[in-house]
Amino acid sequence: MKPNTNNIDNFLQQHLDDYIAELVTLCAQPSVSATGAGIPDCADLVENMLSVRGLQIQRPKTAGNPIIVGRAAGLSERTLLFYNHYDVQPPEPLNLWTSPPFEPTIRDGALYARGAEDDKGEFVARLAAFDAVKAANNGQLPCNVIFVVEGEEEVGSPYIAEFVRNHSDMLACDGSVWEGGGLNADDRPGLVLGYRGILAVGLAVQSMNRDGHSGGAHALPSAAWRLLWAINSLKGPDERLRIRGFYDRALKPSALDASLLEKLPDPEAKLRRQLEVDAFAAGRQGKAINRAVFEPTCNIQGITTGYQGDGMKTVIPSRAEAKLDFRLVPDQDPDEIFALLQAHLASEGFSDVQLSRLGAMWPAKVAPDDPLVLLTAETAEEVYGLPASIDPLVGGSSPVYAFAKPLGDIPVISAGTGYSDNRIHAPDEHVRLSDFMNGARHLARILDRFASLA
Amino acid sequence: MKPNTNNIDNFLQQHLDDYIAELVTLCAQPSVSATGAGIPDCADLVENMLSVRGLQIQRPKTAGNPIIVGRAAGLSERTLLFYNHYDVQPPEPLNLWTSPPFEPTIRDGALYARGAEDDKGEFVARLAAFDAVKAANNGQLPCNVIFVVEGEEEVGSPYIAEFVRNHSDMLACDGSVWEGGGLNADDRPGLVLGYRGILAVGLAVQSMNRDGHSGGAHALPSAAWRLLWAINSLKGPDERLRIRGFYDRALKPSALDASLLEKLPDPEAKLRRQLEVDAFAAGRQGKAINRAVFEPTCNIQGITTGYQGDGMKTVIPSRAEAKLDFRLVPDQDPDEIFALLQAHLASEGFSDVQLSRLGAMWPAKVAPDDPLVLLTAETAEEVYGLPASIDPLVGGSSPVYAFAKPLGDIPVISAGTGYSDNRIHAPDEHVRLSDFMNGARHLARILDRFASLA
Repeated sequence: MKPNTNNIDNFLQQHLDDYIAELVTLCAQPSVSATGAGIPDCADLVENMLSVRGLQIQRPKTAGNPIIVGRAAGLSERTLLFYNHYDVQPPEPLNLWTSPPFEPTIRDGALYARGAEDDKGEFVARLAAFDAVKAANNGQLPCNVIFVVEGEEEVGSPYIAEFVRNHSDMLACDGSVWEGGGLNADDRPGLVLGYRGILAVGLAVQSMNRDGHSGGAHALPSAAWRLLWAINSLKGPDERLRIRGFYDRALKPSALDASLLEKLPDPEAKLRRQLEVDAFAAGRQGKAINRAVFEPTCNIQGITTGYQGDGMKTVIPSRAEAKLDFRLVPDQDPDEIFALLQAHLASEGFSDVQLSRLGAMWPAKVAPDDPLVLLTAETAEEVYGLPASIDPLVGGSSPVYAFAKPLGDIPVISAGTGYSDNRIHAPDEHVRLSDFMNGARHLARILDRFASLA
Repeated sequence: MKPNTNNIDNFLQQHLDDYIAELVTLCAQPSVSATGAGIPDCADLVENMLSVRGLQIQRPKTAGNPIIVGRAAGLSERTLLFYNHYDVQPPEPLNLWTSPPFEPTIRDGALYARGAEDDKGEFVARLAAFDAVKAANNGQLPCNVIFVVEGEEEVGSPYIAEFVRNHSDMLACDGSVWEGGGLNADDRPGLVLGYRGILAVGLAVQSMNRDGHSGGAHALPSAAWRLLWAINSLKGPDERLRIRGFYDRALKPSALDASLLEKLPDPEAKLRRQLEVDAFAAGRQGKAINRAVFEPTCNIQGITTGYQGDGMKTVIPSRAEAKLDFRLVPDQDPDEIFALLQAHLASEGFSDVQLSRLGAMWPAKVAPDDPLVLLTAETAEEVYGLPASIDPLVGGSSPVYAFAKPLGDIPVISAGTGYSDNRIHAPDEHVRLSDFMNGARHLARILDRFASLA
């Protein structure tokens, strides 16, 4: 064990109550980005929590809620950036909370409150780690630290990508610790290396100025059939996309990625039980389900056309609409995929299908042998006593890309205070005090040793 | 001109006011099958209008609204059956009527009221024809006559097929005159020889017990895609059905049918203008649109699955539903098509698609050279001074089949009082008095000469 590690752990043990008190204060302050409730006060509170620790505060102008940047200089040239957010999900339905969502309450070894885990608990665990590392290093940080704490993560971080692009000098760093992390569903420390990108689009067809009588179906053009054929042209039951050029930039998993995938547990039985699934997409089974995360997808979010009531109505729909999303693997680019999709529809004869763009995020992934990944895994095993479960790529998307790319392909990892049942976004959200402590211990080890990765 | 014809026309001319008065009485009596309003009183009124003319009344028990059967004996063995209905569409929206729907009002040479055309006007025109033929034949009918007047046509005639099957002896006849008929959109007498059948079905897929996160789309089964692929398997953009055996009983148009189709006007320009259509189904153009009525169809009435609100939602739908209808040509059988559809889905691997039956009607068509068709066309030209426009098959469906088949493949034709703008089912429904007169003249000629077809 490194010399500072004992000091760090002792410091955190001695001051746990203080950090829980700080977390209680932060959680008692509502900050619902969906409604705006409490946002300015919570931003001030976060600023104060950083400035009392001597971090230099900046609040660059954005079009949205305040983004608080706190910076502290360390002994090395290297810089570690912590990403967090102070906004929370709406607390409704209120009647399902055992104690009120903005009256933080400790019971059974856990703190219950909206934001107790996501993401106020994780933010305070980082403040604790920051304090512990400073104390263990005679009041000095071994590397520079930047905190970025935004206020719109729960509504999709609409301004964060632009913010990072506009302030890449201020945010220049050598690695970043994202929100999330902690224990996975198997109670092992989990480490996510990558997220897929996403392109969401709308498709619409207007075939006539009003619905027709189905007695005319041998001649009148059906918007429903046109849309169905257009969507059908995108993908077959083998789940392979038929858009020309779609896979050109799609990376296969590396040998290291493949060996990490192989170590992940077989998800089939659990999914069958929880979701009552009979057959998986493309007939996938067992660990092939895990491996398929490296296959980009084309998902139908919804379709609406024609008559949807009881019984029947002999109508030819004049309008049909669908929303689709494509989950993209590294290094696919949603801008390029949108252009390929446009070209596909045109070349397949679907120029009557109106295509609109609903949203996009880029894929982001760090290499399994990146030094920050190795450090995170090694320190996780120290803290939790179990080797980390490393997921090279998860199916969902994350604004991680908004930092990783513009800041120079920096590695981004997660380490935190979560576990599988902490009910984020739901009533009775909580953080277990033991997870809070282990998360702080883990984060402190990473911060303490980050300078040595150079 | 036949000897009776002048007498018939003179009789009708002399008594026109009496028949309009009778029609006013009938239209003043509401009879909305959708709500039941006025149905029993209207049934009694119809019974009385038949019994005062000496017809023998029967009201066989049915599960629905009264069906009035009136029978009168004639000089020959041959029997002609008139089908009508006394129920009407709901009158709403009331504020769009110039005069109240159940206060029949004559203006500009037309009688305005709900049911003035559909179908009370047509019924009274037949009573006028009945009286005129009797008067012109010294108080004798040249053939037997049966009136069938039902009270649920506007809600889909749910009991009529069973009624005819159960009372085929009572209804035995050699030919039938259906509702409808009169002038078409080109102001020519129109004659429809056939209607397509219909099979309406529901398709539903439940792929999971709840919606999934679209980040799992590489593995979790999408009800939306499963349903889309299943529907796609039914038909390609060439509009040809891919169900094995689907066309086995589909008759091609005969040489006579083909020559009648060729005489119908080219509908393309009008459809393009009225419905703002860019491209027709299967790229059909000009008179090919008319010919395609002999192609059975597969129409999507509606599809609903997943998220349908604004913006986007990253969800994999666990449930997807669609309603389809197949318009069937002679001699396709909806029972058989349903079985073929079931077999198709099973053989294509869509055993997860739940198929349900929503409704069915059989196709029905009379041959263009049937003596009753020739009589109807010949008498139409006498009355209207223009050769009849004969449509061998229209795209829609009709309960005609419920009479034609069980009564021994009798010929069924239409002759009536309509024109293209009489606003049936809409506010300001009306019958023009000149159309009423011509309809009665036409119907009387058919009745007068029907015995001679033997």
